Amino acid sequence: MLYFMNDYSEGAHEKVLNALIKTNMEQHVGYGVDDITNEAIALLKKRINKPDADVHFLITGTQTNTIAIAHFLRPYEAVIATDHGHISVHETGAIEATGHKIIEMESKDGVLTTEMIDAAILKHADEHWVLPKMVYISNATETGTIYTKSMLEDIRKACDKYGLYLYLDGARLANALTCADNDMTIEDVASLTDAFTIGGTKNGILFGEALVITNNRLKEHMRFSIKQRGALLAKGRLLGVQFRALFEEDLYFEIAKHTNEMATILKNGILDLGYELVTNPSTNLIFTILPNGVHDRLSKHCYYEAEHPYDENNMEARFVTSWATPKEDVLELLRLLKEFKAN
Amino acid sequence: MLYFMNDYSEGAHEKVLNALIKTNMEQHVGYGVDDITNEAIALLKKRINKPDADVHFLITGTQTNTIAIAHFLRPYEAVIATDHGHISVHETGAIEATGHKIIEMESKDGVLTTEMIDAAILKHADEHWVLPKMVYISNATETGTIYTKSMLEDIRKACDKYGLYLYLDGARLANALTCADNDMTIEDVASLTDAFTIGGTKNGILFGEALVITNNRLKEHMRFSIKQRGALLAKGRLLGVQFRALFEEDLYFEIAKHTNEMATILKNGILDLGYELVTNPSTNLIFTILPNGVHDRLSKHCYYEAEHPYDENNMEARFVTSWATPKEDVLELLRLLKEFKAN
Amino acid sequence: MLYFMNDYSEGAHEKVLNALIKTNMEQHVGYGVDDITNEAIALLKKRINKPDADVHFLITGTQTNTIAIAHFLRPYEAVIATDHGHISVHETGAIEATGHKIIEMESKDGVLTTEMIDAAILKHADEHWVLPKMVYISNATETGTIYTKSMLEDIRKACDKYGLYLYLDGARLANALTCADNDMTIEDVASLTDAFTIGGTKNGILFGEALVITNNRLKEHMRFSIKQRGALLAKGRLLGVQFRALFEEDLYFEIAKHTNEMATILKNGILDLGYELVTNPSTNLIFTILPNGVHDRLSKHCYYEAEHPYDENNMEARFVTSWATPKEDVLELLRLLKEFKAN
Amino acid sequence: MLYFMNDYSEGAHEKVLNALIKTNMEQHVGYGVDDITNEAIALLKKRINKPDADVHFLITGTQTNTIAIAHFLRPYEAVIATDHGHISVHETGAIEATGHKIIEMESKDGVLTTEMIDAAILKHADEHWVLPKMVYISNATETGTIYTKSMLEDIRKACDKYGLYLYLDGARLANALTCADNDMTIEDVASLTDAFTIGGTKNGILFGEALVITNNRLKEHMRFSIKQRGALLAKGRLLGVQFRALFEEDLYFEIAKHTNEMATILKNGILDLGYELVTNPSTNLIFTILPNGVHDRLSKHCYYEAEHPYDENNMEARFVTSWATPKEDVLELLRLLKEFKAN
Repeated sequence: MLYFMNDYSEGAHEKVLNALIKTNMEQHVGYGVDDITNEAIALLKKRINKPDADVHFLITGTQTNTIAIAHFLRPYEAVIATDHGHISVHETGAIEATGHKIIEMESKDGVLTTEMIDAAILKHADEHWVLPKMVYISNATETGTIYTKSMLEDIRKACDKYGLYLYLDGARLANALTCADNDMTIEDVASLTDAFTIGGTKNGILFGEALVITNNRLKEHMRFSIKQRGALLAKGRLLGVQFRALFEEDLYFEIAKHTNEMATILKNGILDLGYELVTNPSTNLIFTILPNGVHDRLSKHCYYEAEHPYDENNMEARFVTSWATPKEDVLELLRLLKEFKAN
Repeated sequence: MLYFMNDYSEGAHEKVLNALIKTNMEQHVGYGVDDITNEAIALLKKRINKPDADVHFLITGTQTNTIAIAHFLRPYEAVIATDHGHISVHETGAIEATGHKIIEMESKDGVLTTEMIDAAILKHADEHWVLPKMVYISNATETGTIYTKSMLEDIRKACDKYGLYLYLDGARLANALTCADNDMTIEDVASLTDAFTIGGTKNGILFGEALVITNNRLKEHMRFSIKQRGALLAKGRLLGVQFRALFEEDLYFEIAKHTNEMATILKNGILDLGYELVTNPSTNLIFTILPNGVHDRLSKHCYYEAEHPYDENNMEARFVTSWATPKEDVLELLRLLKEFKAN
Repeated sequence: MLYFMNDYSEGAHEKVLNALIKTNMEQHVGYGVDDITNEAIALLKKRINKPDADVHFLITGTQTNTIAIAHFLRPYEAVIATDHGHISVHETGAIEATGHKIIEMESKDGVLTTEMIDAAILKHADEHWVLPKMVYISNATETGTIYTKSMLEDIRKACDKYGLYLYLDGARLANALTCADNDMTIEDVASLTDAFTIGGTKNGILFGEALVITNNRLKEHMRFSIKQRGALLAKGRLLGVQFRALFEEDLYFEIAKHTNEMATILKNGILDLGYELVTNPSTNLIFTILPNGVHDRLSKHCYYEAEHPYDENNMEARFVTSWATPKEDVLELLRLLKEFKAN
Repeated sequence: MLYFMNDYSEGAHEKVLNALIKTNMEQHVGYGVDDITNEAIALLKKRINKPDADVHFLITGTQTNTIAIAHFLRPYEAVIATDHGHISVHETGAIEATGHKIIEMESKDGVLTTEMIDAAILKHADEHWVLPKMVYISNATETGTIYTKSMLEDIRKACDKYGLYLYLDGARLANALTCADNDMTIEDVASLTDAFTIGGTKNGILFGEALVITNNRLKEHMRFSIKQRGALLAKGRLLGVQFRALFEEDLYFEIAKHTNEMATILKNGILDLGYELVTNPSTNLIFTILPNGVHDRLSKHCYYEAEHPYDENNMEARFVTSWATPKEDVLELLRLLKEFKAN
């Protein structure tokens, strides 16, 4: 079976795994205050050019978003996000479970615009409404699209105008920053946001998200929130080891480049074969319209997500490439798509 | 100045006030387990024809919604409501503050349809999403419209199909059930919902909402939730006295009839004068499009809400009648609307 | 039957009731931004000599404590209180329900000492513990004892030393400040705390607690929290009317003086009769050890709390005087206590 | 440097690490519904002899306790625990952060007795108090002591009497069940509790706690809670791989036996040298009273926790053995303790 299900189907990239093996019997203090973690933090701060940032390594994406938002906001403050936002739909109400409303703005392609921010602010007049205080965006978005630098700058301006924090969910940040349509650096991201995350789980490590906080007002006592929400890993050095491996030689971006290359071959191949895409992704999520007959046959040879019918005659299929996707698998998938389309 | 600001601008209806005065020096046990409260509960249960219902008297509407919903739901369960729902927009995120997401469905006139319920259910596939478990509707709605009996029956069926509780916010229930377009009784409401509220604050008493629970699964330990959320009034008999006054001679519905009559005169008068309405209300909230020139002059003679511009040339004004609105005030308002329109 | 059950058995003091009657048909804007409420706030700020304080009128004591504490603290911050504290035991976990731990320190008489604060701080070493950030005390305490000015000054110093907010629950503040053992003024209380409450419910009004915030850091956006927690009364002027009545001629303190006088007569009489007290109260809560035989007979003539056996042969009875307690009732109670003791 | 700091200083036991390496490039579905996880669950259910139990693999101990307790309880329900309980003191108020009060009962050695349960129940009279609904115990306890079978049976009876759930935190369950003083099996634990955890992090794996639920009433929709609290690991198979390794050949108990053997040698050696212990542990936490002079010298050769002074002249030191502790390190530590004591 081919496997285009997601970008977290395998374990860790070889270099990351080797780093874990190599350090396995070292003795370190617990809870992420060990030397390796400190090294990883230093590497990361250097790479984003923010020597004063606070960096915390957390375990899962939902956990990271939850802890950050719950830590940053007062009880009556709310987050503006799109209705595709991971926090809006795919985290089982984790943000609301900490007491905060998400103001969900309708978006076709998962991108948040400044018009949406304006509209959300306008509507929330007084103390009978929640107080909008944060903008949440994902880059890459949940539909595979990305923000350009000017888009991010505009959002930053809107946030400054209204006194909002800007938080960027970077679960697939590496993919965004290494794709062909991108014009931003990770330093730009660090400069334009108040806090952002650097996703590891979907980019070649066993697990791990780095939470980077650049706004001084948001930093204090974060470790209390991390512990309280169950995210302080006893063997915290596991996160340090993995992020050190990602950032000591820019492996973080190399991995994503491969992922994107595989996605580009796949996307172009799919379009060449005459299939339609649901969105026009820049990164590694290819939402494709598959005739039911093709889906019936393909699903016997390949794993991929196809939860929702697109219409009566078609399925919406999601193909995802990853750091572990071999080129031959992409080509074989295209071959199958060609074969099944012809019949 | 005329006063069409809202239906809670004055204190209490004369009969309610007199009941408070008369019982003032009586000595009663605290926290709502006194004899008067018990009498009021008995009257109310008889009136709704639900001898086995649990009835609790609470203080404010937001408090009542919050306590009920937080008591009924498990942490990962969510409420389906319209984007006009009082809990969606006008309670400062009170529901989310207890940990529950509101799934907001777009609605033009504040009415929730079974199609919206279907759509919400379809979307929430698995444990990565919140679990829809309750439908919240308001009758009358926040725009002054109402549910007919068949509409409520359909929603009940949809709830049964999907295993959802049906909760009806009756902050203005009296208005809904006494208006010309209504075909339901309060017994119908009690039979078709799992829990509902009978609003007092907007219908002639100082403060108070009755929470009625007919579904046995939702009843247990409610007084713990009431106390925990700060809603157990020490002098609980104040609520008993007021609701006894409302229900010992059907004053509850008489009051609303007057309110609706005043609203009907006003609405018809406004339409006769050639003004347009934003919605077509059945009850006492008349959202009217006022040319800016009219608004400028009228607002010097009358209090009413006019927060949002309707467009460049018009304001959206909300006129509300109440138990305390004299007919002459309605006529005077119409006279002013006529005069200012002519110029 | 005599009635020494509590200090909230009747409605409102005559002057308060008359104020409500007099203003009943006035039209005011809702939610506590009306002129009467503003007058009441001005009177109160003048009386406590804190022109810059923020004052909010809330409805119940549990509600007030919950809203204040949830508004003041960050998610990982905790409150230090005695194990008698109203928030510790008698609010159904309301504070924990907002996410905050109460660090309960054992206290014989309900009074918190600086040694307890020291001990609590010492124990909470790092981010594996909650962060103590507030001290909660009640004056009068839940056992009827009070704080002297030097005790409060010492607690203030301890709070300053450790960076803690000092919050004083004044549900029975009037009783504390008018009793024979008191040496503080309400201005002292306002100067030595960061926030405190002025209880009305137990001192002659229908309902109402004033929350006074003097620390600027704690003020912002409080109305959002009040609304979110369901405490923004539509007819907010009801609170304004009552507090204006309490503070326009110092009725607040006059009422409490009477309560305390009745308590003093009762306490001295009880001691003269040879009964023992459980604590040595300064105010209106008289915890008395009643032989079972006396309790059996007395409870047929008088209502009072007697929930817990003191030992095999005795009950712990709580007699409470109030603004509405006539002297003849106190004397009659003493007569019965004498009569039943003799037999 | 010697290392007796804790039992999570190294990575994973060789067999566990090898299992991770071997499965690294396998492709599996995410979020813990993969085949390996299912195998691990089957092995575990067989080992505890509970074919109908629900088993979930979670990441950290605080996370597991939080999710379980928040899932099991209604908002007003509380947990009874000792004042040494991990949830009481060492989880930054995580339980309170989900809204639930912990009723902390004073305990000398971390063991909860039925008398404490009786006392807690007696005190919580009505809806003004939280409702006790769960008993939380740890085995081994936080001081290294354990429960015998008859102690656990008595607690079970008390729980049945009062309608309480019994939850056992097994962060160090392996140590408890393999120590010399133990007379219980893991089947006993599964039969006598409603839910319990099987700790992996402190017993040789990288991370992971198994939550076992045997009470049917507590099972429903647990995966929603797990996802909502950020604990659903994308590469969930990592937990499956590790727990499969622990339970396919009883490695889980072999590891703990070694840990306990090392602890026994250390404990006996310490006592032989004439040092005093703070408690009398059965497992691998040896709280020892070290004269300040000894501590000053020893801490240059060995890592161990010594946060609190025992008295003016002594430190309280905690020595912890683990699966990775070589016997020679224990002997060297004893040699140093002997040498420094002599001088």
